[in-house]
Amino acid sequence: MTQTKIQPETPTCNGPCCKAARKYCAHRDATVEQTWPGLHETVLSWGPLPRNVTSLPKRIMSEREIVITEKTPETLVAELAQGELKSVDVARAFLNRAALAQELVNCITELLPDEALQRAQQLDDYFQAHGKPIGPLHGLPISVKEHMAMKDKTHDAGWCAWAERRAEENSHILDILWNAGAVFYARTTQPQALMQLETDNNLTGVTVNPFNRDLTCGGSSGGEGALIGFRGSCLGVGTDIGGSIRSPCANQGLYGLRPSALRLPLHGKGAIMLGNESILGVIGPMSTSLEGVKLFVKTILAAKPWLREPSLLAMPWRDDVSHFPSQNDRPRIRVGVMWNDGVVQPHPPIRRAMETLVQKLEKVDGVELVPWKPYKHAEAWQIISQLYYVDGGATLRQTAAESGELVLPMTEWILSQNKNNGRVLTPSEIWTLTRRREAYRMEYADHWNQTATETGDEANPVDVILCPAGPGAAPPHGHARYWTYTAVWNLLDYPAMVFPVTAVDPELDQPAVDFMAMNYEDEWNSRIYKPELYADAPVSLQLVARRHQDEKVVEALEYLQQYF
Amino acid sequence: MTQTKIQPETPTCNGPCCKAARKYCAHRDATVEQTWPGLHETVLSWGPLPRNVTSLPKRIMSEREIVITEKTPETLVAELAQGELKSVDVARAFLNRAALAQELVNCITELLPDEALQRAQQLDDYFQAHGKPIGPLHGLPISVKEHMAMKDKTHDAGWCAWAERRAEENSHILDILWNAGAVFYARTTQPQALMQLETDNNLTGVTVNPFNRDLTCGGSSGGEGALIGFRGSCLGVGTDIGGSIRSPCANQGLYGLRPSALRLPLHGKGAIMLGNESILGVIGPMSTSLEGVKLFVKTILAAKPWLREPSLLAMPWRDDVSHFPSQNDRPRIRVGVMWNDGVVQPHPPIRRAMETLVQKLEKVDGVELVPWKPYKHAEAWQIISQLYYVDGGATLRQTAAESGELVLPMTEWILSQNKNNGRVLTPSEIWTLTRRREAYRMEYADHWNQTATETGDEANPVDVILCPAGPGAAPPHGHARYWTYTAVWNLLDYPAMVFPVTAVDPELDQPAVDFMAMNYEDEWNSRIYKPELYADAPVSLQLVARRHQDEKVVEALEYLQQYF
Repeated sequence: MTQTKIQPETPTCNGPCCKAARKYCAHRDATVEQTWPGLHETVLSWGPLPRNVTSLPKRIMSEREIVITEKTPETLVAELAQGELKSVDVARAFLNRAALAQELVNCITELLPDEALQRAQQLDDYFQAHGKPIGPLHGLPISVKEHMAMKDKTHDAGWCAWAERRAEENSHILDILWNAGAVFYARTTQPQALMQLETDNNLTGVTVNPFNRDLTCGGSSGGEGALIGFRGSCLGVGTDIGGSIRSPCANQGLYGLRPSALRLPLHGKGAIMLGNESILGVIGPMSTSLEGVKLFVKTILAAKPWLREPSLLAMPWRDDVSHFPSQNDRPRIRVGVMWNDGVVQPHPPIRRAMETLVQKLEKVDGVELVPWKPYKHAEAWQIISQLYYVDGGATLRQTAAESGELVLPMTEWILSQNKNNGRVLTPSEIWTLTRRREAYRMEYADHWNQTATETGDEANPVDVILCPAGPGAAPPHGHARYWTYTAVWNLLDYPAMVFPVTAVDPELDQPAVDFMAMNYEDEWNSRIYKPELYADAPVSLQLVARRHQDEKVVEALEYLQQYF
Repeated sequence: MTQTKIQPETPTCNGPCCKAARKYCAHRDATVEQTWPGLHETVLSWGPLPRNVTSLPKRIMSEREIVITEKTPETLVAELAQGELKSVDVARAFLNRAALAQELVNCITELLPDEALQRAQQLDDYFQAHGKPIGPLHGLPISVKEHMAMKDKTHDAGWCAWAERRAEENSHILDILWNAGAVFYARTTQPQALMQLETDNNLTGVTVNPFNRDLTCGGSSGGEGALIGFRGSCLGVGTDIGGSIRSPCANQGLYGLRPSALRLPLHGKGAIMLGNESILGVIGPMSTSLEGVKLFVKTILAAKPWLREPSLLAMPWRDDVSHFPSQNDRPRIRVGVMWNDGVVQPHPPIRRAMETLVQKLEKVDGVELVPWKPYKHAEAWQIISQLYYVDGGATLRQTAAESGELVLPMTEWILSQNKNNGRVLTPSEIWTLTRRREAYRMEYADHWNQTATETGDEANPVDVILCPAGPGAAPPHGHARYWTYTAVWNLLDYPAMVFPVTAVDPELDQPAVDFMAMNYEDEWNSRIYKPELYADAPVSLQLVARRHQDEKVVEALEYLQQYF
């Protein structure tokens, strides 16, 4: 049993932020109560919760609803399209499980029982009338991170000052998902400023990890991560500018894709620094299955979103042909293996996951493993941590000041990484930094090209990089400091997928007796690892391809994982 | 006969700028003298030059060299690849004609006789040894705008302060052209700050139009325009951020493509504001033929430049299939016809060119003409003219101040268009402006989508827009003020091609007696038009497609121009 509270302290002060938060949480709680009357009291009656709450649905949910919510997206859409499942039943099941998730891990900003059940009924009616689904996502419940605009709903991005703001229109991506048949039923939590690899803000408090509530769910799409990890959703919409899709996917053992920038629609994303193009955020899918990820991107790109949102690349999903040459009827895939990034050595469970996969892949015909030497990842962090806040954090602090809310410790942490000491850069300084970013990208490309040449095959350079998704499994709250395992690929704009491998096993994953820290960060990271503290935490890894090779990284993972 | 001087005044003051300019021009003149000894004196001996100097090569060049230099790029590469022409002879012919161009229109920063003839000999040797060309551009002379880096050569972008600067490496695009067999032999002039639709700087003075020396060659790739217009080159490398490829192509009756941003390599471009991504410049081809344009882009993209320069789109040239549906074995192409942009009405010759093409296209089976209503082009100019100088012009004025050079009138003109009165914007203000840019782009996309719907065919929206390339043919020097006919497509990042239609005919192109000005700019533009002043000026038009549809705009022009 754990001492971590079920929910964060109810805000009690009388400042505008706490007032806003009380109202905000009261609305959320009302939507939970409406969804599942009496649930809150029931969960309270259980007393202290176990660290791992993933088995609790069995205690209170019907067998049928458990079965439904544990199906993958591709199974659900297939059964819905065959009429084997009704959309209303599926929506009901996910609403219930999401309500329970909120009680156990605090991942919801609001549930949408009325809208979801009405939509589901409409889809069932359509199916009955036409004998076919309305689109490729017919009846599929999809959860959405709060800062993606939904018309007339909150659009606060976790800011107290924005708690009363309502969206004027839907996000572009939600329109497409809707037209494909999706059912929106749950909106999820995010950290202050959307810039933590944890999820804590002054409106909704801390979201915790369902596999181990002493650990963070990750962030910034942490509400999605916790909800999907708990199987209160099977497919969700996240966003990522430094790891915000991949960190929560890794922390909950999910599949998550950070696509190349400007492939999936962004319009409708709420954030304080919209228009800042120094480093581009992306939207992407988080799912219980790889097929769910594919279903998402293929549905979105089939709608040609660039015709409405012309900042996007006019680039369809190109999986009509394989991205790998064939050799003896099997694809030939060269995998660069990056054990660590040269700065921080991942914890033992990550090392074990890497070893496991490498041992398996070594035996696969057509798969070649080559060592991947990280290229100046410390410098990458220097660059991107400045690009995040070319205004020195002025906009952030101003937004916090509007309601008097505290700038939270993990938000301060990322601001502290910016080497300009909070100074607002001039345009000319921003251009200098941008040139440094571009130079780094060219150097990395050169490094990739050179790596290929050294191994003697110019025609088939390294296809994908297999590497950790972070310096460890989900860390204890307040400890997710080292972003570079994910953020380096944001700086380079490489597509990256996170996928589950195993879970922390305190017996197997003892600290190495011969560990030697390479530097301060490495030392710090090693010290936070205590096997028992991390028990049950999912262990995930990351697969990365070159820019715009999103289809390639998905195809590679699809092929390779049959051997995992 | 005209009073326009053959060359600008030799700078005579003793400031650092004039000293730099004298040295700079002396070097240029030496390369001309080396290329064609005695040419300068010969041309001087002719006395006052005619306004139209395009027939002068016949007076002094051999018939064979005239024939060679008036071939299109596709003919040249075909004959070179067959061994019917020698690379050395072709290089020699273009060097000579470029030398003459310099004497007549002042379009060269330096000729490269040694390098070019040596390279050509190397290619001839290769051909003799292997019996085949080295690549798709084997032996083709290509001229290059000066600010594209050539290792160890000047890299001044027209700035006195940079006159001594030498490039450390080649531009990426030049490496690719070189590998394909190109011969670099001439480097061309550009205006101060690269931000005029004319060509005037304090190092090399004014470049004039070979068809009418009282008119501007356009800019900023004006040296290329004048040189290719004079047939001192058949294919050149230009750059465009507001019309800088299309203005000189239009002014000299050439084919020029402004590709979508980030399709062709930029690395090696010299400019004072590198790293400014508020509005992206592009590199593109300028040629005497449409095939020349295609040859250029296909050669570049076949080299997969995104693997070296990862800011580029990983998007090959996609012309393996038609971009138009077929109807009765003919492509079905819907052309939006924009007679004017709702702000400034083009001069009579442009109107006549539009009328001519519309009359011809109306008769073509499968071609549908629909009216194109310009969407807030005045607002587009408000936005882009601010995006050009988010630093209020500080960097520009500082660079001018370094050598004490004058900020020239046409440079002051573009700065004056920025509504922020020279103020340096904060990051937050830049983001606001960027959001306005994005909003405009989405509105224009919506406008495009709506236009299609109104004409009753959702499946085939308007394919391309036919419109003027400017408010008139090449204007007199100092009068190229109205950029919006080209710059709106930069703001939208739409690919746009300029192509020749006719030439100004003072008899046919009299001012309309019933002209009514819509506003001050329109009035001003109408007043500068005097038919006799514009005599012989080429008249060109523009074809535009949606973002990333570069292949489509090229295919459309290729098909349509058989009916012109």
